[in-house]
Amino acid sequence: MLYPPQRLADARRATAAAGLGALLVTPGADLRYLTGYHAHALERLTCLVLPADGEPTLIVPTLERPAAEASPAPATGVRIVDHADGTDPYPLVVAALGGVPGAVGLGNRMWAEQVLALRDVLPGAVQRLAGDVVGGLRIRKSPAEIEALARAGAAIDAVHQRMGEWLRAGRTEASVAADIAQGIREAGHATVDFTIVASGPNGASPHHGTSDRVIGAGEPVVVDIGGTMPDGYCSDSTRTYVVGEPDAEFRTAYATLHAAQRAAVAAVRPGVTAESVDAAARDVLTAAGLGAYFLHRTGHGIGLDGHEAPYIVTGNALPLEPGMTFSIEPGFYIAGRWGARIEDIVACTGDGVRRLNTIDTDLVIL
Amino acid sequence: MLYPPQRLADARRATAAAGLGALLVTPGADLRYLTGYHAHALERLTCLVLPADGEPTLIVPTLERPAAEASPAPATGVRIVDHADGTDPYPLVVAALGGVPGAVGLGNRMWAEQVLALRDVLPGAVQRLAGDVVGGLRIRKSPAEIEALARAGAAIDAVHQRMGEWLRAGRTEASVAADIAQGIREAGHATVDFTIVASGPNGASPHHGTSDRVIGAGEPVVVDIGGTMPDGYCSDSTRTYVVGEPDAEFRTAYATLHAAQRAAVAAVRPGVTAESVDAAARDVLTAAGLGAYFLHRTGHGIGLDGHEAPYIVTGNALPLEPGMTFSIEPGFYIAGRWGARIEDIVACTGDGVRRLNTIDTDLVIL
Repeated sequence: MLYPPQRLADARRATAAAGLGALLVTPGADLRYLTGYHAHALERLTCLVLPADGEPTLIVPTLERPAAEASPAPATGVRIVDHADGTDPYPLVVAALGGVPGAVGLGNRMWAEQVLALRDVLPGAVQRLAGDVVGGLRIRKSPAEIEALARAGAAIDAVHQRMGEWLRAGRTEASVAADIAQGIREAGHATVDFTIVASGPNGASPHHGTSDRVIGAGEPVVVDIGGTMPDGYCSDSTRTYVVGEPDAEFRTAYATLHAAQRAAVAAVRPGVTAESVDAAARDVLTAAGLGAYFLHRTGHGIGLDGHEAPYIVTGNALPLEPGMTFSIEPGFYIAGRWGARIEDIVACTGDGVRRLNTIDTDLVIL
Repeated sequence: MLYPPQRLADARRATAAAGLGALLVTPGADLRYLTGYHAHALERLTCLVLPADGEPTLIVPTLERPAAEASPAPATGVRIVDHADGTDPYPLVVAALGGVPGAVGLGNRMWAEQVLALRDVLPGAVQRLAGDVVGGLRIRKSPAEIEALARAGAAIDAVHQRMGEWLRAGRTEASVAADIAQGIREAGHATVDFTIVASGPNGASPHHGTSDRVIGAGEPVVVDIGGTMPDGYCSDSTRTYVVGEPDAEFRTAYATLHAAQRAAVAAVRPGVTAESVDAAARDVLTAAGLGAYFLHRTGHGIGLDGHEAPYIVTGNALPLEPGMTFSIEPGFYIAGRWGARIEDIVACTGDGVRRLNTIDTDLVIL
């Protein structure tokens, strides 16, 4: 079961242990994780009020009530309360708390306008972050969540395997990206979250999206794509392609990147730190003189959010634990020339690592 | 010019007038409005620091720097500063402020984790909302913005006019919605924001999305669709269709709704209040006994956000001004049976109203 009811009980215990009187969670991954309710962030307040010591209440706009009732939320034991357009919903939050707590944990992505409105109605409550509590639960995926991420991984793998249908010299990045987007949907994703198609010198910008640039023969093309499956879990995978024949210098650099990515994957096991996995990739690139061109961290966690803890980055001494899932995506970016990146999602297992993207990571010559 | 540089100067003046020392604006419509930079909300901090009395700075993650530099932002005079993965970006905010202001305005949709991080590095600064400043600028659209919204309106109108290609009895709502999504992209939108296809009893839930329900002959189907154009401006339009022959009761109710929607559009002119436009629609429905089934406000503003001020709702005494753009979308929702809604985007002009959706609002029999 992807959204088991005991999560609310777990969260309440963790809330109390963190010294918080309640969590206040607006739409997003935390809300979906805790209740199964997939709500859109709107200017109308939707907020789960989860007292450490009391019954949970889900406050929703009246016109979202049918959607909330049809979601898994009622089965988790939350009471649903609604507010009509033109009425002030914040007194409902105060009522649902059943008293002013000393400190509340706000969902990390709650909007500032809601943060300040809550400060006004709860002036006595210190505001902290719910992520300190919910993040600690979400960071270790259950077996059902790992399987959901494996399904998402297989779906995006299937899109990469179709790249030969779409990616060729003479087409624009944007037109290739449009075809990929359709492929992401056809592979079973509910939404297309990003379609990076970065050809030639555009590949030197790690977060280039797409453009009207026409892809040239022999150019490397970085394709970083992902979406969200109907159950809420995300995919994210990068492969680098060459349309035609790559030059020798690029081939050599890619071989180093390939070794770096494999080294980082191989470094994953319980007890090693997140930063040591980053170092495993970085050291290989640095030894080959490419370290200065690896402009970003090695990875990010993934689950109901596309980017979440743990971050695989220098300075993060967090020891990996079984159930943690994250990307391993080293790259190199050489301004004015080209770039490359290889990205797989992996899970830390009881004794090592499981790749949730299972296709080859060799340079693909189309 | 959609993103003219003088907006930053206007915002600085309004910031000072509001008694704020600076605005701090993270990715979203405010940032795009002020600088033309269309940034994605990420866990890595991107923040415009706009002192009322000092130079503006755009703080970005290192790997977003190329995108920021390629955006219209540098032409507006902002200085770009970047921070590498694994470093703390908040001291850059403090430095860009050039001193601790007495009060700062935070972007209304800034994430709580950023709000609290800013509180920690600026403990002496009272936190208020940037929306009080930027919202006052954004609410009155320039002629160029009205034309952008008219282009968005024409694009979504073109999608409604193709509905006969897709909507028929025997298909599921979800499959019709997938075709509509493709049509929204083909009509020139950069993103598909929502595709509500609510057939029969599903039409009684105003924010129903889609489902695997098979559309039946003679059923009303509410189709509420919208997207974002490449320039950032949004479309949003609802029409109600019947696949086959509607029953007489529905026809009669629809005729009332049609009159209500036209009455509200006709009520728009400078100086009338937002709530009086709501009342114009509501009164017609109430007089016909349908008032209790009109579950939501009459409309919302639209621009770079799909929902923004002004809200056309009971209790909003804001007088309309030329350049304000918003939806007029009364509906009725009868649980277990069906629903209907008619939605156009309109602009308040110097002496009346301009519809930015220009197709017919009659019930469409397919």
